[in-house]
Amino acid sequence: MTDDTRLALAYLSRVAEPPCAALTEFVGRVGPVEAATRIKTGDVDDKLARHTLARREIDCAADDLDLLARRGGRLIAADDDEWPFLAFAAFSGVDHKERPQGHPPLALWVFGDVRLDDVAQRAAAIVGTRAATAYGEYVAADLAAGLVERDVTVVSGGAYGIDGAAHRAALAGDGLTAAVLAGGVDVPYPAGHASLLHRIAQQGLVISEYPPGVRPARHRFLTRNRLVAALSGATVVVEAGARSGAANTAAWARALGRAVCAVPGPITSSASIGCHAMLRRHEADIVTRAADVVELIGHVGELAPDEQRPASPLDDLSEAEQRVYDALPARGRRTTGQIAVASGLPTAQVLGPLSMLELFGLVTRVDGYWKLSRPT
Amino acid sequence: MTDDTRLALAYLSRVAEPPCAALTEFVGRVGPVEAATRIKTGDVDDKLARHTLARREIDCAADDLDLLARRGGRLIAADDDEWPFLAFAAFSGVDHKERPQGHPPLALWVFGDVRLDDVAQRAAAIVGTRAATAYGEYVAADLAAGLVERDVTVVSGGAYGIDGAAHRAALAGDGLTAAVLAGGVDVPYPAGHASLLHRIAQQGLVISEYPPGVRPARHRFLTRNRLVAALSGATVVVEAGARSGAANTAAWARALGRAVCAVPGPITSSASIGCHAMLRRHEADIVTRAADVVELIGHVGELAPDEQRPASPLDDLSEAEQRVYDALPARGRRTTGQIAVASGLPTAQVLGPLSMLELFGLVTRVDGYWKLSRPT
Repeated sequence: MTDDTRLALAYLSRVAEPPCAALTEFVGRVGPVEAATRIKTGDVDDKLARHTLARREIDCAADDLDLLARRGGRLIAADDDEWPFLAFAAFSGVDHKERPQGHPPLALWVFGDVRLDDVAQRAAAIVGTRAATAYGEYVAADLAAGLVERDVTVVSGGAYGIDGAAHRAALAGDGLTAAVLAGGVDVPYPAGHASLLHRIAQQGLVISEYPPGVRPARHRFLTRNRLVAALSGATVVVEAGARSGAANTAAWARALGRAVCAVPGPITSSASIGCHAMLRRHEADIVTRAADVVELIGHVGELAPDEQRPASPLDDLSEAEQRVYDALPARGRRTTGQIAVASGLPTAQVLGPLSMLELFGLVTRVDGYWKLSRPT
Repeated sequence: MTDDTRLALAYLSRVAEPPCAALTEFVGRVGPVEAATRIKTGDVDDKLARHTLARREIDCAADDLDLLARRGGRLIAADDDEWPFLAFAAFSGVDHKERPQGHPPLALWVFGDVRLDDVAQRAAAIVGTRAATAYGEYVAADLAAGLVERDVTVVSGGAYGIDGAAHRAALAGDGLTAAVLAGGVDVPYPAGHASLLHRIAQQGLVISEYPPGVRPARHRFLTRNRLVAALSGATVVVEAGARSGAANTAAWARALGRAVCAVPGPITSSASIGCHAMLRRHEADIVTRAADVVELIGHVGELAPDEQRPASPLDDLSEAEQRVYDALPARGRRTTGQIAVASGLPTAQVLGPLSMLELFGLVTRVDGYWKLSRPT
């Protein structure tokens, strides 16, 4: 990408509140450099003018790029090799009447050395309430650890609670993790996560659609959520209350055709109400293990192993064998005739099952009586 | 019902291990009295002979009926007014190749004054593991209390753990509860629940397909489970491990076309593995409240109220109002122009939203500046 193009994109990323469909369309048509020039001079149609009027005179693109570069960051756009086209292609399937913000970003500001397409190639989002319980944080951490162990990037929003637990566990597992922010990448939010976000930038990526200095705002969290969903093959909601941004991220994942998962929790916990509501409405698959998530995002053939079931030697008995076995007392012994009465089977039909049970080592014959080989 | 008929049914209920399709068919064809006479003398076809040979000479019908009558019990069959035909009609739809035991009972022995059809008219089963956690017992009790409050009978198996917690809470709520046993109604099982079963018989019903004195056996629990499912409009599994009788009851409920529900729990709890597995396989609906269960079994129009969502004055803002609101700092004030830049909206489009926000009491105008009416 030429310096001019990058400067133009930096200007454009601030001139309209993203995502701005009119701007994206204009840039796609005339290119970033001409788009920036024409917006600055007001040489655009009314619709785009409305979106850009308030900020068109602000040009701090060079400063923004300098600031980021000094701190090891960069601006990425569709011209760059690492642009995750596949991840963003799903926006073309979104119903824009229902979801006016269902557009890919024009450009992304990032901190971190990892390539963005590597992050998005095999990623799962773990999201949930800031007011997480100890259970929720444990589960988020456990899932994140299991995901990075299976080479899955953990994407989240950098918030307190579930997000933070997921990022931390991914870092602890030497895995890739990406935080998508609702403000500039140089504006650590929440402030208490400044050092966590710094570590994420060192080992993974801190990503934002907003230029440096922009502070997070309520509507920006909702806009940001679409990028969390888009960059991830599956979105896992760990804990979510009745009102939750996580449900919004899950809705974006659904709109983008991505897998949506919810982790159940105690029904006595208000932190799990949102997860249970999604499961009740069949808006999410239930997941209890990282392997379940990998199966949803994973390559073909990567199926989660079945839950282990402890086996019992009594599982494979025929119905008659089962009835004969049950007819024997826990202690003491019985004649064949007594067993017939207790089981309700004719004597002649008791002998076969008894022989089989003897063969399996379950019953023993002693002096013409039968008894269980070991106390039940 | 004549005494002869009842004596014959008492004899027949012991002569073959229930459920015995050949016996039920024979009784349906020739009536109970002739069926009993012909079985005693061996005047039956080979198939029925095989099922009745071992016990046909045992006739303690009069003693059985006396014993039960002295203790306030009775034998119920299709001739009785209280026979729950509707509950058992569902067996006609069962695939008998897949489920050879999918037949209604020939007769039922009960302790308790309540009519069986009253019990089955509006009932839900609450079942689960004997190895319940404190969480599981709490949830079972809470659901049972909520169900009896809504005039729903709580059906279960009288076992330790979930079953016991459900029965106890139903009794405590002065509700109807029924325990279906895998042995004779005079054989309290588990022994530690003798007094609980006694209380159930006083306030509700203790029910068994097996004649007095029969001890529970492994295969009888599976057979019994079909009756728990049949007598209930919905079966709710509260906690179930990887191997669980509760899953068998749920399978019967499914086969009978009844609602099947599972309560989620912590994914860290092995006691909830079975519930989560049923939810993952879409074999059960998730339930978190008694009202959810009532909706599944209830009369038309009895819908559970929506989960309560705390409302926020910001919920109903338009997108522009939201952006303008977010553009105001938590503390301090802004000019209209500053708000336009921060929100990315032209100044002309900021004034309308500001007026609306002022009208809602969310922002205040002071000396030409705008500020939030209260700190966020």
